[in-house]
Amino acid sequence: MTEISTLGEFVLIERLTKEIELTQFTSIKGVGDDAAVLDFLEKRTLVTTDLLLEGIHFDLTYTPMKHLGYKAAVVNFSDIYAMNGCPQQITVSLGVSKRFSVEDLEDFYAGLRLACEVYGVDIVGGDTSASVTGFAVSITCIGFADESKIVYRDTAQDTDLICVSGDLGAAYMGLQLLEREKTVFSGKEDLQPDFAGKEYLLERQLKPEARKDIVKMLAENGIKPTAMIDVSDGLSSDLLHICKQSNVGCQLFEERIPIDYQTAMMAETFNMNVVTAALNGGEDYELLFTVPLHEHDKISAMSGIHIIGYITKPENGCHLITRDSQEMPLKAQGWSSITE
Amino acid sequence: MTEISTLGEFVLIERLTKEIELTQFTSIKGVGDDAAVLDFLEKRTLVTTDLLLEGIHFDLTYTPMKHLGYKAAVVNFSDIYAMNGCPQQITVSLGVSKRFSVEDLEDFYAGLRLACEVYGVDIVGGDTSASVTGFAVSITCIGFADESKIVYRDTAQDTDLICVSGDLGAAYMGLQLLEREKTVFSGKEDLQPDFAGKEYLLERQLKPEARKDIVKMLAENGIKPTAMIDVSDGLSSDLLHICKQSNVGCQLFEERIPIDYQTAMMAETFNMNVVTAALNGGEDYELLFTVPLHEHDKISAMSGIHIIGYITKPENGCHLITRDSQEMPLKAQGWSSITE
Repeated sequence: MTEISTLGEFVLIERLTKEIELTQFTSIKGVGDDAAVLDFLEKRTLVTTDLLLEGIHFDLTYTPMKHLGYKAAVVNFSDIYAMNGCPQQITVSLGVSKRFSVEDLEDFYAGLRLACEVYGVDIVGGDTSASVTGFAVSITCIGFADESKIVYRDTAQDTDLICVSGDLGAAYMGLQLLEREKTVFSGKEDLQPDFAGKEYLLERQLKPEARKDIVKMLAENGIKPTAMIDVSDGLSSDLLHICKQSNVGCQLFEERIPIDYQTAMMAETFNMNVVTAALNGGEDYELLFTVPLHEHDKISAMSGIHIIGYITKPENGCHLITRDSQEMPLKAQGWSSITE
Repeated sequence: MTEISTLGEFVLIERLTKEIELTQFTSIKGVGDDAAVLDFLEKRTLVTTDLLLEGIHFDLTYTPMKHLGYKAAVVNFSDIYAMNGCPQQITVSLGVSKRFSVEDLEDFYAGLRLACEVYGVDIVGGDTSASVTGFAVSITCIGFADESKIVYRDTAQDTDLICVSGDLGAAYMGLQLLEREKTVFSGKEDLQPDFAGKEYLLERQLKPEARKDIVKMLAENGIKPTAMIDVSDGLSSDLLHICKQSNVGCQLFEERIPIDYQTAMMAETFNMNVVTAALNGGEDYELLFTVPLHEHDKISAMSGIHIIGYITKPENGCHLITRDSQEMPLKAQGWSSITE
């Protein structure tokens, strides 16, 4: 392993960025100047940013650096898709303590580059510096969209259908599984944890994907959502964002929440309520959106999209309708790392 | 003081962002959705990012949170000016450990907002999360420029004049002063350190400004630099960036390097070589640029700009010409926090 201190800053940056090529026509100038230069012609520019810190957002005991790079990029792409836009560029800032090697950073960049290749995004800038402890990653993603295509959070309407892509709760169950097996990872190296039949849960936690395909499918079917958000904090929390910002209420049907078989099995093993995991687990990176009621048939015919409820007037409040038809107030129990 | 844990994430973000108003016509939608929406019409978009970590880039023993917010914004604006562009928006991500209060974060945001007000920039997004230790700040700045006005680093030409704004080494001497007085700050609270006559040094370290005025003055005088960079790592290091990327050499004259009286006095007190401080200290946030030789008279007539050398053919190498006419190779001794 190569200690970072054996290279200078500029040699390190050169080594990390040497394989980066610009592939998007909107990227005019990338890494290597005071700022990157982009050209979006007549489109609107979208910007989103995320800061990921070791010990809070990820645990390197069971997260390979390459996967971390992939995920760090993808969670930002997801925010651009949630605006009905197209991600185009990222900038990457890293804070790195002495326990990391040059090869660790190269693995991280390999993951970043892979994600960028898969989604058609350029790395156009960044910054690598020391940190006192641990690994810090800040990624900013820039994208574009036609003005008329952008979908905000605050424009859901009474009677709209609430839709979600894919399934929920799997990333959270994957995290529970990894946490349980953590001792095996860190202690006895010979003893490999048994993840057979749980691959989907691990993949959802360690290598999530952003739903570019759903944005494309909606466009091809001529559907523009009335409001959209990506499920990062958890279904409850993110649906409440839409409702609060749009000044509407909602009815969410428990039995309609899409849950994968592996997620349900794992929840049973852990003696957890799988619906709670789906509502509050977060990190699903699925798209949660509303469409006008008259799109019902079109949406129903699209695979991978589930109608899970509908929007109401604000005075009706936000509720979960349980399987036994009880009306429970919907609560945001998502994000809490700062309050614990 | 209010513990951060007494507020939830969303209440905290609301409290920090409630006074943020969008003032730039390029900002369509700011904080509160998956991404910000910007409109640069026919201009090129510029993007730059910086990650600042406690214990590496700043020391909160002597850095007030408000100053840190101001500086964190300004150093990013400086990168956009160094492209001959105009900063327009920032996104702000914070990682915050438990030892910080809500008021600390409000002070930080007050500094950010002040910088944004002074420079005409909007805060359009961000992210606040927990950190295991210390304070982490990641800021991305977005700006614009006419395609024809953008100045890169790699376009300096043989015979160009090398110019720098303001004076150099003061921020570094301010840092030395603060480090010396650190025991006074942290230990005996009654005993105030004596900073009389050293205010300029402290201001340069704690509340630097970006040279918007120089960019404006150059434009008003019809001068477009051939290459430009901001002095963040140190004059040596940043001039070498221009030379390396432009594939040229340089002759830099020691006696021409602008140094303030307070900087010189402080260096004498510390028994340090003031030229070394000016060459390698960094954090000056002055603009270092090259102009064609025929602009000599115009540049000479402009106050606050110093001609400190000239560009040569690459085979001549990069040299400092000392006061006694010796030719010394120019070395980058700037940034080293990751290698120490």
